[in-house]
Amino acid sequence: MMGAECMKRFFIISGGKIEDTFAKAVLNGVAEKTVIAADSGMEFLRRNEIIPQIIIGDFDSVSSGTLEWFQKKDDIIWHKLNPVKDDTDTESAIRLAISMGAELITVLGGTGSRLDHVLGNIELLGIGLEAGVKIELLDANNRIRMTDCGMILKKEEQFGKYVSLIPYTAKVEHLCLTGFKYPLDDYCLKGFCSLGVSNEITEKQAEITFEKGILIVIESRDDAAMTYEI
Amino acid sequence: MMGAECMKRFFIISGGKIEDTFAKAVLNGVAEKTVIAADSGMEFLRRNEIIPQIIIGDFDSVSSGTLEWFQKKDDIIWHKLNPVKDDTDTESAIRLAISMGAELITVLGGTGSRLDHVLGNIELLGIGLEAGVKIELLDANNRIRMTDCGMILKKEEQFGKYVSLIPYTAKVEHLCLTGFKYPLDDYCLKGFCSLGVSNEITEKQAEITFEKGILIVIESRDDAAMTYEI
Repeated sequence: MMGAECMKRFFIISGGKIEDTFAKAVLNGVAEKTVIAADSGMEFLRRNEIIPQIIIGDFDSVSSGTLEWFQKKDDIIWHKLNPVKDDTDTESAIRLAISMGAELITVLGGTGSRLDHVLGNIELLGIGLEAGVKIELLDANNRIRMTDCGMILKKEEQFGKYVSLIPYTAKVEHLCLTGFKYPLDDYCLKGFCSLGVSNEITEKQAEITFEKGILIVIESRDDAAMTYEI
Repeated sequence: MMGAECMKRFFIISGGKIEDTFAKAVLNGVAEKTVIAADSGMEFLRRNEIIPQIIIGDFDSVSSGTLEWFQKKDDIIWHKLNPVKDDTDTESAIRLAISMGAELITVLGGTGSRLDHVLGNIELLGIGLEAGVKIELLDANNRIRMTDCGMILKKEEQFGKYVSLIPYTAKVEHLCLTGFKYPLDDYCLKGFCSLGVSNEITEKQAEITFEKGILIVIESRDDAAMTYEI
C-alpha cells in the first residue's frame, strides 16, 4: 500500500516561529522520516531533545550553546555552508532533501514575523514544481502549497477551515473550482485582487483545476479555532 | 514644501494582528490624515479610543459591542458592504481611499498569522500601481511595498535593518542594486529562489532599478531589534 507513511518524508526545521506543541505533534505523527535542521531551527530541536539526521547551515544565527550540544551527538551528518552565499539555509536544505530522494518535504519554522522570510520561503515551493517533489510550509495556522496543475482536497484531510487561492503567476487561466462554497467556472484569476481569499470546502472533496499558470494554495484556520490535531 | 505631511495620507485599519503601541505611534506621527476602519479593525480603534472618519465592512467579524460603540458616535461615514461579496473589506477600503484622492495609503493590521490574508493583502498593493497611488502594508516588523519602476531608499528613512526583494512577476529584468551590501548589476531576478532576501543598505542611500517586471520590497527587522521608533 502506498500511503503518506511509505513516501520518502523529509522535515526541514527552519529558524522562524515554531509553536512547539504543534510542531512536535506533526513530527510524532510520522514514523519514518528524515529530519533536517536548517541553522537556527536547531533551537527548537534542542529544547525538545529531538536529534535530526542532518544539520545544514552557516551557523550564523544559532547560539553557540546549541551548536555545541549537537556537536557532541553521534550520527548527525553536518553540512557547513559558506556564510557569504546567495541562498538561504532553508533553500539549501530543500535542495539537499531533493537530492536525497525526498518525495514530500514539510518545512516547519518557515513562517513568522519576518515577512520577507515568509515570502522567500513561499518562492521555494517552486523548486518542488521544477523537481516534481511535493513541498509544503506548515505552521499552526497555515498549510501552504504551490501547484501548476490543480489539486484535489478531501474535506477529511483538510487543514483548518479556509482554502485561499493566490495567483503566483499574473494570471491563472480557465480556473474551475468545484465542491467549494464559492465555486468558479472557467475563470481567469488575476493578481491585484482578493477574490480567492477565504473559500471553504462544502462537499466531501473539492477540486481545483486550471490550464495555465501557478497557484499558491493556503489552507488556514484562525487562532480561535486552533487545535493541535492535524 | 511638499513633504509626506502635505500628501493626502490615508490609514486603513484592518482586522489582522496589530501591536497597539506601534500602531498608535504610527498614527500619532501624522497630523493630517484620514483613518478608515475596515471591519474588525474597529476593535483596535475602540480599545485605543480613536474615532475614524470612515468605517467600511460587512461587519461579520466585529463584535456587536464594538459596532454599537461606534454607532453612537457622530461624524463617522459608514459604508455597509454585502457580506456575500468577492472582495475583502481591506480591498474595498483601499478602493474607497483611492476614489477619495489618497496619495499614500498605509494599511495597519493587514498582516498576522493567517498567511492567506497576508498574501491577499500583498496582492492589493498592485491596485496602487494601477492607480498611481502609493500603498504600504506596515507592522512592527515589516514595511511592504510594490514597485514596477524601482525605488530609492534613504538609509535615514529606512524601516528596520534588512531590505528584501521578492519578484512578483516571474522575472524582474536588468535589475541593478547600488548602495547595498550585496549589489547586483544587470541581473535577471527569477522566482523560486531566495537570493533577494536579507540585503542591507550600506551607503547613505540605496537604489533599485530594473526595466521589466514587478518587485515586492520588504524592509524588515527582527523582534530583538524592535523598537517603536518608526
